[in-house]
Amino acid sequence: MLKKFLLSLGITSMLVPASFAFAADDATPAQLQGAIDAVWVMLAAILVIFMQAGFALLEAGSTRMKNAGHVAGKTVLTFGLCAIAFWAIGFGLAFGDDGGNGFLGTTGFFVDGSEEQAKAAFGALSGSDVPISIKFLFQLAFAGVSLAIAWGGFAERGKLPVYFIFGILFTVLIYPIVAHWVWGGGWLAKLGMQDFAGSTVVHLQGATAALVATLLLKPRIGKFNKDKTPNLIPGHNQVYSVLGVIILWIGWFGFNPGSTLSAMGDGFFGYIALTTNLAAAAGAVAAMIVSWMYFGKADIPSMLNGVLAALVAITAACAFVTPRDAVIIGAISGIITFFTAQWFEKAGLDDPVYAFSVHGIAGIWGTLSTGIFATPELAAKVGVGGAGLLYGGGLGQLGVQALGVFGAFIFVLVLSYIILAIIKATMGLRVTEEEEIVGLDLSEHGTYGYPEQMKKAAQSAAQTV
Amino acid sequence: MLKKFLLSLGITSMLVPASFAFAADDATPAQLQGAIDAVWVMLAAILVIFMQAGFALLEAGSTRMKNAGHVAGKTVLTFGLCAIAFWAIGFGLAFGDDGGNGFLGTTGFFVDGSEEQAKAAFGALSGSDVPISIKFLFQLAFAGVSLAIAWGGFAERGKLPVYFIFGILFTVLIYPIVAHWVWGGGWLAKLGMQDFAGSTVVHLQGATAALVATLLLKPRIGKFNKDKTPNLIPGHNQVYSVLGVIILWIGWFGFNPGSTLSAMGDGFFGYIALTTNLAAAAGAVAAMIVSWMYFGKADIPSMLNGVLAALVAITAACAFVTPRDAVIIGAISGIITFFTAQWFEKAGLDDPVYAFSVHGIAGIWGTLSTGIFATPELAAKVGVGGAGLLYGGGLGQLGVQALGVFGAFIFVLVLSYIILAIIKATMGLRVTEEEEIVGLDLSEHGTYGYPEQMKKAAQSAAQTV
Amino acid sequence: MLKKFLLSLGITSMLVPASFAFAADDATPAQLQGAIDAVWVMLAAILVIFMQAGFALLEAGSTRMKNAGHVAGKTVLTFGLCAIAFWAIGFGLAFGDDGGNGFLGTTGFFVDGSEEQAKAAFGALSGSDVPISIKFLFQLAFAGVSLAIAWGGFAERGKLPVYFIFGILFTVLIYPIVAHWVWGGGWLAKLGMQDFAGSTVVHLQGATAALVATLLLKPRIGKFNKDKTPNLIPGHNQVYSVLGVIILWIGWFGFNPGSTLSAMGDGFFGYIALTTNLAAAAGAVAAMIVSWMYFGKADIPSMLNGVLAALVAITAACAFVTPRDAVIIGAISGIITFFTAQWFEKAGLDDPVYAFSVHGIAGIWGTLSTGIFATPELAAKVGVGGAGLLYGGGLGQLGVQALGVFGAFIFVLVLSYIILAIIKATMGLRVTEEEEIVGLDLSEHGTYGYPEQMKKAAQSAAQTV
Repeated sequence: MLKKFLLSLGITSMLVPASFAFAADDATPAQLQGAIDAVWVMLAAILVIFMQAGFALLEAGSTRMKNAGHVAGKTVLTFGLCAIAFWAIGFGLAFGDDGGNGFLGTTGFFVDGSEEQAKAAFGALSGSDVPISIKFLFQLAFAGVSLAIAWGGFAERGKLPVYFIFGILFTVLIYPIVAHWVWGGGWLAKLGMQDFAGSTVVHLQGATAALVATLLLKPRIGKFNKDKTPNLIPGHNQVYSVLGVIILWIGWFGFNPGSTLSAMGDGFFGYIALTTNLAAAAGAVAAMIVSWMYFGKADIPSMLNGVLAALVAITAACAFVTPRDAVIIGAISGIITFFTAQWFEKAGLDDPVYAFSVHGIAGIWGTLSTGIFATPELAAKVGVGGAGLLYGGGLGQLGVQALGVFGAFIFVLVLSYIILAIIKATMGLRVTEEEEIVGLDLSEHGTYGYPEQMKKAAQSAAQTV
Repeated sequence: MLKKFLLSLGITSMLVPASFAFAADDATPAQLQGAIDAVWVMLAAILVIFMQAGFALLEAGSTRMKNAGHVAGKTVLTFGLCAIAFWAIGFGLAFGDDGGNGFLGTTGFFVDGSEEQAKAAFGALSGSDVPISIKFLFQLAFAGVSLAIAWGGFAERGKLPVYFIFGILFTVLIYPIVAHWVWGGGWLAKLGMQDFAGSTVVHLQGATAALVATLLLKPRIGKFNKDKTPNLIPGHNQVYSVLGVIILWIGWFGFNPGSTLSAMGDGFFGYIALTTNLAAAAGAVAAMIVSWMYFGKADIPSMLNGVLAALVAITAACAFVTPRDAVIIGAISGIITFFTAQWFEKAGLDDPVYAFSVHGIAGIWGTLSTGIFATPELAAKVGVGGAGLLYGGGLGQLGVQALGVFGAFIFVLVLSYIILAIIKATMGLRVTEEEEIVGLDLSEHGTYGYPEQMKKAAQSAAQTV
Repeated sequence: MLKKFLLSLGITSMLVPASFAFAADDATPAQLQGAIDAVWVMLAAILVIFMQAGFALLEAGSTRMKNAGHVAGKTVLTFGLCAIAFWAIGFGLAFGDDGGNGFLGTTGFFVDGSEEQAKAAFGALSGSDVPISIKFLFQLAFAGVSLAIAWGGFAERGKLPVYFIFGILFTVLIYPIVAHWVWGGGWLAKLGMQDFAGSTVVHLQGATAALVATLLLKPRIGKFNKDKTPNLIPGHNQVYSVLGVIILWIGWFGFNPGSTLSAMGDGFFGYIALTTNLAAAAGAVAAMIVSWMYFGKADIPSMLNGVLAALVAITAACAFVTPRDAVIIGAISGIITFFTAQWFEKAGLDDPVYAFSVHGIAGIWGTLSTGIFATPELAAKVGVGGAGLLYGGGLGQLGVQALGVFGAFIFVLVLSYIILAIIKATMGLRVTEEEEIVGLDLSEHGTYGYPEQMKKAAQSAAQTV
């Protein structure tokens, strides 16, 4: 048997794949461009997958100590479920060929990473020379973000099995359909809807599912008094929230600029990073000032929401607008998200991490904003849709944007409602009152996320009594 | 004197190195490829070095508050020691020319970053056109990961000076030898062993050193009762653990895909990222379900271990197997790691962060799995070894894999044992009982990692008495 | 209206910008090089922006629980302010054409990302083919780091409005001026000052502002006894500090190697990463050993300061020195920072996070060190200045370095003093005694950063009484 292996004795190098050509002048421009584009989109995919850490920290920081392990840990679990479900089914529905139906793809399940499958099944993605495996990872990262947003609506009271079931169903029944409409060559793509990196596709979808969950799960115990006035249930760790938001900000440098799916085009991805960063900065400053004026104190969670809202809004518009308009879009987003968050709370909605204000309202605003601020030059450069209202485009593009928002919102609202209502009627969505009071770390996982601190708290409470 | 400087008055630009050619059509394809490959592997190296943050968080989160500063802080110290020792000696032993001895390199100490040294001393790495400085950083990152894994076995009871001494010795006497065998053109490379990114080289090595430490240090105070039944000593912060695991998952996109040492090859590094991610996802889901069935509660630390175990296992196989088989490899890894962790605990072993189950058992499984699942096409593409058992390769490749596992395990076991036994007999490995009870933050560093919280805890304890 | 949109029916692909050329052999070497350089510098910019997370964690970890939300949260706010102010004004002052005045640029305000503006206004940056939008983001990241360093001097007692006002003024009046002198073609550039990535431009500037703040704000309540002996006010979370420092270390792989502004040059950016990493490692080890010898305990915060000090020092020198000399520069930096930190404390200065020792003293040392260790070959390769004292350059280069340090230090000292003295005399710099005692989370933002833990602490305190 050893003899057989001695055949490979010629190998004296590390495990460098033998088929790569090195240090020779024989790489073609197309191969070189393919490698550059692949590196760029791979980096972008990694940044967007890293956003899971941002969501885990932000959501954990914005909720209570007794739920911290659960809130953070379920992020990893559901990204795992999403990764497998999107690989097997979701990616084909979103980007497979639809034979002209305009509604959903019907090819490309169980992605095998081969160029054969890429050519046969994913014609909608053929405009980019990035390998199909990296396109898949990039799109998976987006699906994972949309799902992470949806979980905001379940926070601090959803049952663990619901995360399994809804996580899979969202990944295969909801997200890929709207993704196909806008990015997979579906009916909204044909109408020229401008949603560069997914204010609607990613953020509004996740937020709408969160809204449905918020409605069906009802408020957390203690959130509202009998007279319907709300109580503040502050998150337990603002350092986590800040770290989470910085990670999300960083992740957005993959999210938006990476959606070029190429590093060519004279640095257009850099332009998108510029508008994205300006919007985020404006959102931070605007929300901080508004909260200071409104509360009399500069509220940190409000400022962090302002950053995210601005990033959500610029996601659709980043490639279509000028830097100055990006500042305006971001600042407006920070302000409207602040006020809608207040308003939702007054309306009796308990959305613990403000998922619908931050990702839904800002997602809608962002999608509409391209219909207002898109310049004809940038619309032509991107090759999707036309100029916005303020740049000579009339109401046309704005109408398409509104139609896209409306279509996506209704679709996700109805489908999420049906799924979650069935779960509620059968196995139930929410933990028991006792479980909610003791916390999901104990009820769903059997141990506290902070065993030493919670034990001390329990002792201290016992002493006080 | 000023006169002399006025000679340089011609400079009107930023500190852009003058020898770079910009915006001119004179870069050759080889230079362009060199730059692309360098950027890709530099990104990969950065991601793998970032894994030190993952290990610091995971290990701190999995241990107690009184040891948190020590556990996190020693990560930085030992990566520093490793960086200098690997630069001076380790890298030459691992990748220097061995003059045919097949056991260890004898050239290339004190890496100077020059192409002259690269050509003269590092023939084993000449298959890639990445600059030697980046090759060094990438390989250093791997050595650092292996060392970070080893520390798992010392957690919560090892003396600080041991980290200094063993950290250096592991970096210059243990890790580079096995790395040379498999990746530096040594005897296992000549046999065609398939260990693409180091299930054996990195993970099994570190885990074996951890196992020896676990055996020699004995269990932590309070871990086992007199009747030998184990007590749970839960880690103090699951949010840290979750963040650590997400950072490690992200880091693995450098670890495995970066081991191509090139971005060319029609996106093969993307393919490796695809299999890597699928395995991790499958490990998360499989371990969560198994823990739920076994404990009756979905245990978050077990799920996190499942993610890591799957990543460890796919590390050898990532370039040789299909996406579907990656799912299988990852799921199996999540399951066997769960049960072996239970079994080790029942056997009286106290491995606080499950280093041997997660990196050792899964490292062995992963290394063997390529001998089972490697396809002939991928083995040919990589140019190392042949097909696995299920793809017509018979027992040949599996035999090589087993031989590699056995050789590495025995080598590290014996050498670690000798080193640690000598330390134990002379200066001692373990802190005193009093030091362990008060915690390593105080005993080894003079201050708590959480001074305010620990002070309150002490006050509270005093009150209770 | 729908008719108009039907014109775009031809679109069947994702939002891939139509103007990019894919999978065709028509990209020129200049375009390919442009794309590679753009990806590399974008990655570097992202890494340096991520350093904001490192500063937020390090500063929060090094201060007390009652200030944690404020300390972390203000990082996001002030980066937002800096991003907008640098976009509108700062970048033009730093890198706009100065018409030969050598002091500050006068073109390029409100960066629009166009090549027209780049050509017309930013001649100083024309040596690199990276798109102007990415150059802007990279330089913004540096300005943001310098500002984050400055905040160290305000920690735990500065008023929130001061962060608004000084944040903007530092970004438009201080930082860009010195940046122009050294990197924008100003008078220090013309003298051949070697400050590759900003030991002086970024670190000494921020540290000098921090020093002025430290002097004007006076020590924190409780820092010094009546007999002027200092008390230790330990930071509340060493795990945050460690994570922060690892993130900063990682960020430095963008900071220094990215300052090549190109990935070409036979991997010179990799060489810079090598020297950077070696210095950091040496700083960690040297500071740990020194603190162990001095205190009798291996102090973790001192070691972390050693890492940062070494990184600060190698920032100027990274491209000019050998790997061996990088080890020496880093080790010396770790040692002198340790002793100057002790000395400043004994002198009655309360610099809560050691901003001036770590970034100021090490910044000075690093800037001078290139005048000592620069080799003629590397100085020629970079094309700035000449050899250092130990490599046959005499005192010439060292003199330029000293002049640059002196000029920058005096300029920032005077200007910061004027600005902060005016603020102090008008609205005040410092919170009231009551506010400082209760903590800035409550006083400036209305809620604790850790509401559950602080509430328990308050209860516990009440009980004790």
